[in-house]
Amino acid sequence: MEYISLEKKVDNYDIEVIIEKYKNGEIKNNDTVKVKGYIHRIRKMSGFAFVILRTSRRLIQSVFTDGESKGSLDNYEEEDTVILTGTIVNDERSKMGFELRVIEIEKLSGPIETLPIVINKKQVDCNIDVLLDNRIITMRNPYERAIFKLVDGILFAFRDFLRKEGFTEFIPPKIVQAGAEGGADMFQIEYFDKLAYLNQSPQMYKQIMVGVFNKVFTTSPVFRAEKHGTRRHINEFEGLDLEMGFIDSFEDIMVLEARMMKYLVDVLNKDYALELEEINLKLPEVKDIPMIKFAEVKDLIAKEYNRPYRDKFDLEPEEEKLIGKYFNEKYNSQFVFVTHYPEKKRPFYAKEDPKDSNYTLSFDLLLNGAEITTGGQRINDYNEQVAKMQRRGMDITQFEDYLTMHKYGMPPHGGLGIGLERLSMKLLQLENIRMTTAFPRDMERLRP
Amino acid sequence: MEYISLEKKVDNYDIEVIIEKYKNGEIKNNDTVKVKGYIHRIRKMSGFAFVILRTSRRLIQSVFTDGESKGSLDNYEEEDTVILTGTIVNDERSKMGFELRVIEIEKLSGPIETLPIVINKKQVDCNIDVLLDNRIITMRNPYERAIFKLVDGILFAFRDFLRKEGFTEFIPPKIVQAGAEGGADMFQIEYFDKLAYLNQSPQMYKQIMVGVFNKVFTTSPVFRAEKHGTRRHINEFEGLDLEMGFIDSFEDIMVLEARMMKYLVDVLNKDYALELEEINLKLPEVKDIPMIKFAEVKDLIAKEYNRPYRDKFDLEPEEEKLIGKYFNEKYNSQFVFVTHYPEKKRPFYAKEDPKDSNYTLSFDLLLNGAEITTGGQRINDYNEQVAKMQRRGMDITQFEDYLTMHKYGMPPHGGLGIGLERLSMKLLQLENIRMTTAFPRDMERLRP
Repeated sequence: MEYISLEKKVDNYDIEVIIEKYKNGEIKNNDTVKVKGYIHRIRKMSGFAFVILRTSRRLIQSVFTDGESKGSLDNYEEEDTVILTGTIVNDERSKMGFELRVIEIEKLSGPIETLPIVINKKQVDCNIDVLLDNRIITMRNPYERAIFKLVDGILFAFRDFLRKEGFTEFIPPKIVQAGAEGGADMFQIEYFDKLAYLNQSPQMYKQIMVGVFNKVFTTSPVFRAEKHGTRRHINEFEGLDLEMGFIDSFEDIMVLEARMMKYLVDVLNKDYALELEEINLKLPEVKDIPMIKFAEVKDLIAKEYNRPYRDKFDLEPEEEKLIGKYFNEKYNSQFVFVTHYPEKKRPFYAKEDPKDSNYTLSFDLLLNGAEITTGGQRINDYNEQVAKMQRRGMDITQFEDYLTMHKYGMPPHGGLGIGLERLSMKLLQLENIRMTTAFPRDMERLRP
Repeated sequence: MEYISLEKKVDNYDIEVIIEKYKNGEIKNNDTVKVKGYIHRIRKMSGFAFVILRTSRRLIQSVFTDGESKGSLDNYEEEDTVILTGTIVNDERSKMGFELRVIEIEKLSGPIETLPIVINKKQVDCNIDVLLDNRIITMRNPYERAIFKLVDGILFAFRDFLRKEGFTEFIPPKIVQAGAEGGADMFQIEYFDKLAYLNQSPQMYKQIMVGVFNKVFTTSPVFRAEKHGTRRHINEFEGLDLEMGFIDSFEDIMVLEARMMKYLVDVLNKDYALELEEINLKLPEVKDIPMIKFAEVKDLIAKEYNRPYRDKFDLEPEEEKLIGKYFNEKYNSQFVFVTHYPEKKRPFYAKEDPKDSNYTLSFDLLLNGAEITTGGQRINDYNEQVAKMQRRGMDITQFEDYLTMHKYGMPPHGGLGIGLERLSMKLLQLENIRMTTAFPRDMERLRP
């Protein structure tokens, strides 16, 4: 009988492994190594050429010398995949600490036609529609893919932080019979002989799971059939959701989030420095985060910038920007918590402020003048929830599952929701949310 | 200005934190602690009572003594959420090392009616339909929730292993224009004025991402509109998918998976021992994994068990079971890799065996007689892929996005897909896949 051995490790010629070994002395100057990758660019000089190899996180410079290196570069072109055998040559100018002198290049595969768009410049030079239409290859551009690597880092940091805090991950359903927030703006599905919907929020499910594991989170897709095609909306996004029980106050959720943001920025600075350098970005510093009440900040901004507001119950986009500016300038903070949003604008499950029922025990976190999180304390008492639904004229028979958890006892609890793409857009200072997602879905876009 | 301080830590009376502190001496015999939780059960004795508190991972025994403990238990019932103040009393019989003597119980909330189903026995005593209809409360049962905690562990271990191996996570779209495998068995959506589908596999997307990051993975929902209601099928499940480039052979994928399975079992044994004990399960030992060719194992099983097979091109469920039995008995292995599946039964992107094009460079991993993984090497050459599509009579204009990546150069690559629920079912030895998922979706079930 043949076996797959647990001892066997596959060497797929990973430059990151080689760099590690170089750092701890296992690989030295003049050693021969094999590196896999794409040929990103060839720069021919007189008698030699620079071959720039693209590996999963780097561009590696190697030198092909006519007569010394084996064969000829005539048979190679950009986007060939190759295994390059080379000699390590110490070089302090290189980030890796060394350069490679080519001994031999083995071609594994190559493009069958020239790329329709140049991807081996610093950035892809085209408008966003062309960028997205050609996503399959434009993502190979080092600037573009650095964004996705950073998004990977944000996703990792969110989960890692919460696991360390004792949270349990759960999986909410995506196909549902009715909507979490009442049913507007949902995509309809033919589900065998029934009608169903794509879930627009895991809200009900995360509250249910508080009754099971107390502290829970999920990272899962949510769907919104909203008909606006702005730069900050897409119709399918990744929700980062958490919920926790036995809170003393909704401030507990803000305390958790402040520490989470700090953790996230620390992770990116530490483990994703290559990508931050690639997109030339300095992340915001996370310090203690100012918090201010909704009603208070509206008056403050109106007064400070001599700009009367029209919407009493919500922050206008222009107001959000001014809040960002104000707290940046006066308090040197890119983050602000705005608390106690009006009852009118918050969902039916938001807990009202016992001191003033026109407001809720809720908050948004703003980063540089845009909302990146919505959170708050939820109603946990059955009678209070039913009464609020009735005040709003809701049909409680439509919320049987929702009310079942309250019926059988729920601790005081609250949580928050973050759109991964919105957070990424603001954190990475991108102009269009579509840049943060490999395969965005909007009113016009279903491909690739 | 008020601030949310990064220094503030919220104490929400977590028993796991208290146990940690007890172990390292910060909390000692006779100290007073506060613990949050649900009242799971009250057992009244003469002059005292046992109050069993349910926390996120445990049942904690505390003793309420009439006259000594404050108040009376008459005001408490099962599923009340409480904060229990108690005295630590060393007790070697307890898993925690101590018991609690109740000083006071503060009630936070409670059920408004008696539970329709008993959840505070060892297991919930009802059939699976009743169990699932009442999921919101049956999940609170310690046996039930142990399963979901273990699924959380599997999900964690999958991602953690791959990150340590240098893989990058990506997010595939869930709404797509066409199907990955050709379009059968997909759910249809009304997507604004277009028709769209729910993705049945991230196959195309993970291959595209190999061209970007080389080693990639995703954990994301996939949807299958299959009309069978068996114990091992659901219509929405969580796909654990990975793909890697620059492989030398499809065996590289099996080597990776064998090590991943070992890692997974190690993680569960180490960090999820409480839950394994709760469901009384010993996980399989992962050693070197036997591998055998499809054609060979079919003949072997037919001969060994004197059972001629009917289906030449696939494993029959009965055959899979016998393979499980055979390798368990003869080779003491609960895992088996079956390799080189017939070309006829594998998808259009499967790479054919250069030695015999009737077979593919593919594998399934079987655990105790059932398939838990499908994987293999993919075609990476454009012309080879087009030729194969044409041989199969496929319309290549329908696969423009798929072929675009091949057109511009793809390294040799392969990968695998695991259904989280199927893996969990087999690993945890459950009889119905619905038991592994909090909110299963099948032909009959869209709630809760």
